[in-house]
Amino acid sequence: MSSLPARPLSASQVEPLRSGDLTRDFSEQVFPALERELTRATVNDPGLPAGLEDALRRAVGVPGGGGRRWRPLLTLATARACGREIHEILSVAVAVELTHTASLVLDDLPCMDDAGERRGLQATHRRVGSAGAILLAIGLLARSAELLATAPRGGADLAGAWGRSFGLSGMAGGQAVDVTGAFQTGGHARRLHRKKTTDLSSFAVWAGATAAGAGDRTRQALYRFGRDLGWAYQLADDARDLEEDSALGRGPGGRRPQEQAYRLLGRARRRLREAPGLTTEGRQLLDELGGQIVGEPSPTRDWNQGDSTC
Amino acid sequence: MSSLPARPLSASQVEPLRSGDLTRDFSEQVFPALERELTRATVNDPGLPAGLEDALRRAVGVPGGGGRRWRPLLTLATARACGREIHEILSVAVAVELTHTASLVLDDLPCMDDAGERRGLQATHRRVGSAGAILLAIGLLARSAELLATAPRGGADLAGAWGRSFGLSGMAGGQAVDVTGAFQTGGHARRLHRKKTTDLSSFAVWAGATAAGAGDRTRQALYRFGRDLGWAYQLADDARDLEEDSALGRGPGGRRPQEQAYRLLGRARRRLREAPGLTTEGRQLLDELGGQIVGEPSPTRDWNQGDSTC
Repeated sequence: MSSLPARPLSASQVEPLRSGDLTRDFSEQVFPALERELTRATVNDPGLPAGLEDALRRAVGVPGGGGRRWRPLLTLATARACGREIHEILSVAVAVELTHTASLVLDDLPCMDDAGERRGLQATHRRVGSAGAILLAIGLLARSAELLATAPRGGADLAGAWGRSFGLSGMAGGQAVDVTGAFQTGGHARRLHRKKTTDLSSFAVWAGATAAGAGDRTRQALYRFGRDLGWAYQLADDARDLEEDSALGRGPGGRRPQEQAYRLLGRARRRLREAPGLTTEGRQLLDELGGQIVGEPSPTRDWNQGDSTC
Repeated sequence: MSSLPARPLSASQVEPLRSGDLTRDFSEQVFPALERELTRATVNDPGLPAGLEDALRRAVGVPGGGGRRWRPLLTLATARACGREIHEILSVAVAVELTHTASLVLDDLPCMDDAGERRGLQATHRRVGSAGAILLAIGLLARSAELLATAPRGGADLAGAWGRSFGLSGMAGGQAVDVTGAFQTGGHARRLHRKKTTDLSSFAVWAGATAAGAGDRTRQALYRFGRDLGWAYQLADDARDLEEDSALGRGPGGRRPQEQAYRLLGRARRRLREAPGLTTEGRQLLDELGGQIVGEPSPTRDWNQGDSTC
């Protein structure tokens, strides 16, 4: 078990994943340390213009209020499944969440999605203007690079794969396709569009395994698990939007995206079974966590037995 | 000598540094390979919206037209001074130039400096809009991370130091102070403001030494050399602006920033002398290159003899 304190958080601090036992126990165990490290990552040198550091903390959602944190939880759960202590991998998990936050700050800009709110609060550019928001996003990416460099293993590989995940062949490319509507042209553009969502979730899982020192076959299978899970999450999110529209009389509603999400979740779980060397408990945790991320009504226990080395 | 082709470039391809013999020979030797790798770094997966890859190439200035490239030249010259072949270090030098280009693309945005032109061409946001320009800048940073990860030595250290150089404690913080005018409040803010310029030049030199496998004392002295040189460059640039204003009858003119630049160049050269283990030719090359960067009228030969190991 981890050496981290298992202090449960109050509901006002973070919104824990609704979960089966393993996921709940794991989330309650790691959330305090994760939030503490996220808070530390938002501290800057003196001299930064007034308001920017505060806006940075609000964007990251510290203390408390930063959403479900499922990407860094995936990183930590993967490392646990590979037999490592969580405290070793915290910097990598924090880098994943900061990179996600950077993408949200940029997506919300007036020149992108022009969103005035994020997580029920003012969007970052509403607090510090577009220039401030862009520079904060750059700062979040920069801090991610610093944190990945301190990983106990594979620091250079992590930095390289992280670059691929958020660049023009990954998240930024997917966002470009999204902003321009080019994904409607199909083919390559549609594949690139998916990477807006999938490249960070696959990196989150792969990074946990890499920092834990897992072998190539394990990392490759886990990468695919993270990719399928990321797309299943996106489809489930689309399904929720459709349901909301339907409830407001704005659209047809329907279950198709949710069904697709479950089908993809099933594929993700098969990928997980293909990953050699995970601990039994860790494999079960990742399986449950996947179900929670995609919004499965009740945790399944249809996971494969693994052995205890990674 | 490097194994790279020593093919001289035509004037239309790049603008070489005006130089003493060593700098000119070195520039002519490495420019073709540098431009080739810069061009390769701008290739993307299919699916990117039309116009973005072309805008990326124009921002980086390939083929031909990307300014003096003094930062990557510093990286390569430092590695040479540490006894390494240039081709090993090209990816690091390219990362330095791409990071510089990302900062220019962001600085030019309407919400920042609102510059319509860069190097005599349309600014990137004039070609692809603010959203496109922001995503291209993110893509340039991402590609930089990928390239640094392939360095022959010190990949994780390079990624971490690179993060510090462009984040809120470095270039992005300096730009935030610049945009808000907070540097006028003095103290911490003024120090942070300088980092807008100095953090990439110090990283450029340090990264060349780190990828070359230089020892700590050498890297520390070279880091300070790069920092002082970066600030000297900025002061010389300010002096040129003042002279132009004076010629147009807009200001008093005056030599003070240029004098400060030369004084700082002198300090940078003292830092260079403090760096143990540089090759004799490499030390002379860095000394000359420093003079060229700051706009010294004629190359000095007042450099220290070094030994041949690093």
